[in-house]
Amino acid sequence: MNAINYNKVTSITFLLFEQIVGKKNISSEKEQLEKYGQDETEDLIFFAEVILKPSSVKEISQIAKICNEHIIPLTVRGAGTGLSGGALPIKGGVLLSMEKFNKIIKIDERNLQATVEPGVINYEFQEAVKQVGLFYPPDPASWGSCSLGGNIAHSSGGPKAVKYGTTRDYVLNLEIVLPNGEIIWTGANTLKYSTSYNLTHLMVGSEGTLCIVTKIVFKLITLPKHDLLMLIPFNSPELACKSVAEVFKAGVNPSAMEFMEKDAIDWSIKYSGELSFKVKPEWQALLIVEVDGNNLDILMSDCEIISAVMQQNQCDEILFADSAEQKNAIWKIRRKVGEAVKSNSVYKEEDTVVPRAELPILLKGVKEIGKKYGFNSVCYGHAGDGNLHVNIIKGALSDHTWNIDIPKAISEIFELCKSLGGTISGEHGIGLVQKNYLPIIFSPYHLQLMKDIKKVFDPNYILNPGKIFN
Amino acid sequence: MNAINYNKVTSITFLLFEQIVGKKNISSEKEQLEKYGQDETEDLIFFAEVILKPSSVKEISQIAKICNEHIIPLTVRGAGTGLSGGALPIKGGVLLSMEKFNKIIKIDERNLQATVEPGVINYEFQEAVKQVGLFYPPDPASWGSCSLGGNIAHSSGGPKAVKYGTTRDYVLNLEIVLPNGEIIWTGANTLKYSTSYNLTHLMVGSEGTLCIVTKIVFKLITLPKHDLLMLIPFNSPELACKSVAEVFKAGVNPSAMEFMEKDAIDWSIKYSGELSFKVKPEWQALLIVEVDGNNLDILMSDCEIISAVMQQNQCDEILFADSAEQKNAIWKIRRKVGEAVKSNSVYKEEDTVVPRAELPILLKGVKEIGKKYGFNSVCYGHAGDGNLHVNIIKGALSDHTWNIDIPKAISEIFELCKSLGGTISGEHGIGLVQKNYLPIIFSPYHLQLMKDIKKVFDPNYILNPGKIFN
Repeated sequence: MNAINYNKVTSITFLLFEQIVGKKNISSEKEQLEKYGQDETEDLIFFAEVILKPSSVKEISQIAKICNEHIIPLTVRGAGTGLSGGALPIKGGVLLSMEKFNKIIKIDERNLQATVEPGVINYEFQEAVKQVGLFYPPDPASWGSCSLGGNIAHSSGGPKAVKYGTTRDYVLNLEIVLPNGEIIWTGANTLKYSTSYNLTHLMVGSEGTLCIVTKIVFKLITLPKHDLLMLIPFNSPELACKSVAEVFKAGVNPSAMEFMEKDAIDWSIKYSGELSFKVKPEWQALLIVEVDGNNLDILMSDCEIISAVMQQNQCDEILFADSAEQKNAIWKIRRKVGEAVKSNSVYKEEDTVVPRAELPILLKGVKEIGKKYGFNSVCYGHAGDGNLHVNIIKGALSDHTWNIDIPKAISEIFELCKSLGGTISGEHGIGLVQKNYLPIIFSPYHLQLMKDIKKVFDPNYILNPGKIFN
Repeated sequence: MNAINYNKVTSITFLLFEQIVGKKNISSEKEQLEKYGQDETEDLIFFAEVILKPSSVKEISQIAKICNEHIIPLTVRGAGTGLSGGALPIKGGVLLSMEKFNKIIKIDERNLQATVEPGVINYEFQEAVKQVGLFYPPDPASWGSCSLGGNIAHSSGGPKAVKYGTTRDYVLNLEIVLPNGEIIWTGANTLKYSTSYNLTHLMVGSEGTLCIVTKIVFKLITLPKHDLLMLIPFNSPELACKSVAEVFKAGVNPSAMEFMEKDAIDWSIKYSGELSFKVKPEWQALLIVEVDGNNLDILMSDCEIISAVMQQNQCDEILFADSAEQKNAIWKIRRKVGEAVKSNSVYKEEDTVVPRAELPILLKGVKEIGKKYGFNSVCYGHAGDGNLHVNIIKGALSDHTWNIDIPKAISEIFELCKSLGGTISGEHGIGLVQKNYLPIIFSPYHLQLMKDIKKVFDPNYILNPGKIFN
């Protein structure tokens, strides 16, 4: 794909685009290009040639067709909260912002479904369905600002994925635009589907490289009435990790099971400000465990089972959140840890994932590789899913070490993941920053199969060029 | 694909196959070809030229390679319980039986996962994981005889899908063989996965047209301790259907929500023999509703909510199964209805699926189309998923009506499904018998995309030729 000769946006194509979206919705101003040239991935920036903000599927179809005919790169952007560089227009061309696709078209209470546009913000959608007693569980840390279309690009998870699954598990049907301008629905609005190849599932997680998603039909569930939240401190991170798999084995399925190691706790608290509870200096790790459901007695009994497992693994005193305020305070520590790391140092975030019982081995391995290469890491994540975010801190490392040695260290971490039955991304995607590591996971033949799928949908390689595959 | 000139199995290729699988595991005897030329789809039979029963992935890789090089059709067969003709060797060639792939390789209690071969029988797998307190929910009516590989081919469901999802929701990773003999794992053994295109999900439901599945890693959950079963009679099938969506809206998520109309009840009882409870002649429909979980009080309260919804919809007196024996008796009526229809008349079974609240419209529409074309239908199925099996009965219809008019009627039923946001198969697949109806659901461009995907994986069209696409 590197061999493609992309064309620039000429004054003629610019005019064509302007006719489609209108003067207000096109820009090539430097300030705008800078703003839309970044996402939440490290400190990267790339400049598109033009930013388009279409308002209808018809406009997107026309834009795609022009880009396809003129071999102009077309990078779709949701809310720009991605962590793998998926929305960065690294080959220039058109940056297509979906921000005007911000309507919740229908909440179907009879069928427990909703039809939405991809620019809707995750949290706003959650709140809208909550109003009618319904529940859309996927809740990435960035839920206050990330878009549902972006969530589909990576099959985003979040704390609740451990009980409720990731975005993929809620997508029933997608309206998509192909590079040639064709508009199709990928499937049906049904809970079961055995009608030829499942294009819906192929699109979820394809990171804007196969199509442009313009409408989504989501499955919803009914909102659980209660939740209980526990903060469980450990003096040993390994024992914290070990207890995770044991909780599931004991028959409890928590609605969140989050892990934070000491540095993650400290950095997040420093960043977020004072807490309503004390953090002891000897704590080396925390688990944040939530259970939810419609019956408080059951939840209390679940908490007892969880407590017993934790105590067998030598946890310190367990804190039960006794108010909405305290719940929020606990969740804030967890949700803000990413930003805290970001504000503290240049870093690289890895999205490792393994079968959950292998988490202690993964954590130990990451620290050993850190020692070998001389880097510090801040680890936290969705322990119940075996999904550990490893933030490698640049700190005082030289640029040479950072650019030459650290990628080797990351390769070792990913090799470890693979050897444990895991993989290199659980929810952040491959995008730009992980693509060089794909050969660790996939054979050349396997990669070729995926490249050939890309070619089926996007024969001119205009969609999100330079992502996932080299 | 019809344009492919397939080659016959020559005496030389026969010898090559014999060297690979051994004399005991190859056959071209007429009796065997007849046995392996049928599945559970209507009264169809097709003859392969040779039946192979390989024992290892290496053997399968070698067989695939030979078929691919010599352009010999290669049809994979699980247990032959399919209902869309997916395992029928309609172009001759090799019939590859997976019956020797019958090992449960590992039940991983730490990670709640299992690695199995595709020839394992669904029920045997369920029982094996139950032994260690675990649960594999997908339970097609044919669970006592269908294979897990076949379940993957169609993403099979069953009564429990309404709460627990279909086969797709339990597949973490697949070892597959491609026509060129390459062997790859499609993904990772993880609960979350955002590592490029999801080939695992693409393979599930691809009906043996893209690859040969040789190992499966399944997710498992812990076994619920209790279940309660209710039999709910209605004098109006429409009101029975209407109450289905209302139960979910009331916040209860049953572990089964099955519908049977009068003829289905009568035929099944006639076929299965005497019952431990009385069926009143005025009953026009039954719902079979199960709830499961770890706390009996909650389940009782769920049953109360369900009862209230049913009573609002004018159900007759609800029967609570009060013993394992009575539960079995109730499930037997439901599980045997397919066989009962089969034993009664030539029939065509349609696997319609719509958003669940549209079920009353679908049922009414099916009956109206029946009147228009003069056929009787026996309807039953997984109402909670909006998945209605429509058995069109030949009875006294002429062959002309059966072969010329009924396909038009089926088209009308499928058009209705589509107009309701549904599709033409929820769990049985397209296979041979539904492929002519695909253009109702998909545009020519959409179909072409799927054909191009087929070409990526199977450029010589040797895998299960003549299925899904014409």
